[in-house]
Amino acid sequence: MNYREQSLIKHAEWKGKIETVCRVPVDSREALSLAYTPGVAEPCMAIHSDTEKSFELTRRWNTVAVITDGTAILGLGDIGPEAGMPVMEGKCALFKAYGGVDAFPVCLKTKDPEEIIKTINIISGSFGGINLEDISAPRCFEIETRLKEQLDIPVFHDDQHGTAIVVLAALINSLKLVGKKKEGLKVVINGAGAAGISIGKMLLSYGVKDVTMVDRFGIICEGDETLNSAHKEIAKVTNRARLKGKLADAMKGADVFIGVSAPNCVTKEMVSSMAEKSVVYTCANPVPEIQRKDALEAGAYIVGTGSSEHPNQINNVLVFPGLFRGALDVRATTVNREMMIAAAEGIAACVSDKDLSREYILPYAYDKRAHDCVAETVALAARRTGVAKK
Amino acid sequence: MNYREQSLIKHAEWKGKIETVCRVPVDSREALSLAYTPGVAEPCMAIHSDTEKSFELTRRWNTVAVITDGTAILGLGDIGPEAGMPVMEGKCALFKAYGGVDAFPVCLKTKDPEEIIKTINIISGSFGGINLEDISAPRCFEIETRLKEQLDIPVFHDDQHGTAIVVLAALINSLKLVGKKKEGLKVVINGAGAAGISIGKMLLSYGVKDVTMVDRFGIICEGDETLNSAHKEIAKVTNRARLKGKLADAMKGADVFIGVSAPNCVTKEMVSSMAEKSVVYTCANPVPEIQRKDALEAGAYIVGTGSSEHPNQINNVLVFPGLFRGALDVRATTVNREMMIAAAEGIAACVSDKDLSREYILPYAYDKRAHDCVAETVALAARRTGVAKK
Repeated sequence: MNYREQSLIKHAEWKGKIETVCRVPVDSREALSLAYTPGVAEPCMAIHSDTEKSFELTRRWNTVAVITDGTAILGLGDIGPEAGMPVMEGKCALFKAYGGVDAFPVCLKTKDPEEIIKTINIISGSFGGINLEDISAPRCFEIETRLKEQLDIPVFHDDQHGTAIVVLAALINSLKLVGKKKEGLKVVINGAGAAGISIGKMLLSYGVKDVTMVDRFGIICEGDETLNSAHKEIAKVTNRARLKGKLADAMKGADVFIGVSAPNCVTKEMVSSMAEKSVVYTCANPVPEIQRKDALEAGAYIVGTGSSEHPNQINNVLVFPGLFRGALDVRATTVNREMMIAAAEGIAACVSDKDLSREYILPYAYDKRAHDCVAETVALAARRTGVAKK
Repeated sequence: MNYREQSLIKHAEWKGKIETVCRVPVDSREALSLAYTPGVAEPCMAIHSDTEKSFELTRRWNTVAVITDGTAILGLGDIGPEAGMPVMEGKCALFKAYGGVDAFPVCLKTKDPEEIIKTINIISGSFGGINLEDISAPRCFEIETRLKEQLDIPVFHDDQHGTAIVVLAALINSLKLVGKKKEGLKVVINGAGAAGISIGKMLLSYGVKDVTMVDRFGIICEGDETLNSAHKEIAKVTNRARLKGKLADAMKGADVFIGVSAPNCVTKEMVSSMAEKSVVYTCANPVPEIQRKDALEAGAYIVGTGSSEHPNQINNVLVFPGLFRGALDVRATTVNREMMIAAAEGIAACVSDKDLSREYILPYAYDKRAHDCVAETVALAARRTGVAKK
């Protein structure tokens, strides 16, 4: 029996992967008078006088909403809000187990970006943070941007930035092994969707100079009038050599290939055409851009994949629990670029120089130390950049 | 130190009265593959094929949203969504402790009925039931009515029907003590807001024939063109004698007085003017319509109040945990009148004939037996009336 068949049976047994529990005594008249009426009027009025007190007198300080519209669930596509729930519940379970965060799944019965933004805004006062999940591109860009402007709590689209952060963490440690510097690196990213574009921006922010993005139609190049608006924007800062052509052209001489694209779109020849000690991350799931074995045979020095079956799993589970833990701990009002880079550095730092190897560039997703480390570095970055309220 | 002062200190210590916990193992690669990717794709697709499976494969079957817009929090009025949270969290804690229901608080940052209805509709796929709370009248009527039409899960406005159910339960047991029959009873309800109107309708549905409603301006009488639409509607089925006048006029010769109104609006003289073995429920909180001691001195045979300080507390905490437990257990698609009356009968039945007395007409709110009993009677009523999906 494979994981999917087993998982269905388990889900029917579990009947839910999270639950809400009561943290206070309510077993007597006195207890009720404190936790509920009449006593509860006092904390209500305290928050009415100062809304910020909702982070002290209620669970808001530790509560994140995991929100989807069901349009891009895993690789399954637009399967609707109810069908997205098993993934959202899974994320909430991981939020608690790895980050100590109370996360609650909210699946939205609308695909209209305006309605999504409005709805999240309306419910935001109940939460200390918003984790957007599996919302299809390009809608996800505007939804995240607008919500970040409107809300004074962290808003984070995991499919974009979670993936970008863990890729950056992998790259930081890979560079130690291949002995190359970020400034001289030639990076190709295949797949210019939500994750790909965020990875591109993240690497540029980190100090990588030469990034080339490729999508189905070929290399993204400034001046191409057929590009969509997101591609036009990224074209301004990537592919400064104005290279044109296909993926194979982009990969010639590249130091790093990052695939967030489609199954089997990379050949052994393409990998062989890369520079010495090349790094190949194939994040397409469940079928990668090229099989790990083939990439190694073709000369790749380090291979990372999206699968838990192989070494070096590039999995954003390493990111979101610690990132929100850190942000909540200091009452951050946003998640900024510095916090994201700090998260990547925190993940990378969890692999000691002694342990670091071609087959161990990232900590395991269930390594609690990694999440604690991310929380610390993110909280420090929030304070350093002045977005922490405490 | 009084309850309110103590409660503020406790809330600062608790930092939240509920929390979300993880119910599944996620501490190894294998565990992650079942609870999260890649295994989770299978339950997602099962729900995509049949939405009803969301009640089997996720926590939806046991999850209720406790939703407010912050406009009528306790007796505090319109204090805003964040400030309403301590009450909503308290309800969620009681939902779990008394009914085993996972309840999650959602405070809405809007007062517009259309936006409230839209928002709740959009998030409804994540929940097995909707408990509306502390939404001001008359907005609450339309919001509940429209949502009941739109959704196929139970929608219940606690301030209307929770109060009405517990008042009916109190009345059922009071009648045993005073030896009167519902059919011959003369009932006066003071306060024709959300709770008062629902109490009126509930008593009529139960078989009480003579109900007179009174509001600030006096007795509600059919034909008065100055009435608002809710009052006009209730006027058609109450006060069939077309009595006019003030509260004092209505109370003359009445068997039962139910106050969901304002502090100190009932005098000893008014109570003395009632029929033999009169029943007086003063639900205004924290200051009742008349002090219990005064009502008893003036001749009331049974007195119930909204306060936990006195015997016979009329508290809707007795209702919602068991009512939703029962509705969820049979996957009820709504909460209908029969289920509400069944809840009242369930509460009343928890006081044995042996224990029943003028000072013990209702079980205590923290009596777990009462909630179990309500759950059973509600589930049976849902099945009997054909609104149970299992």
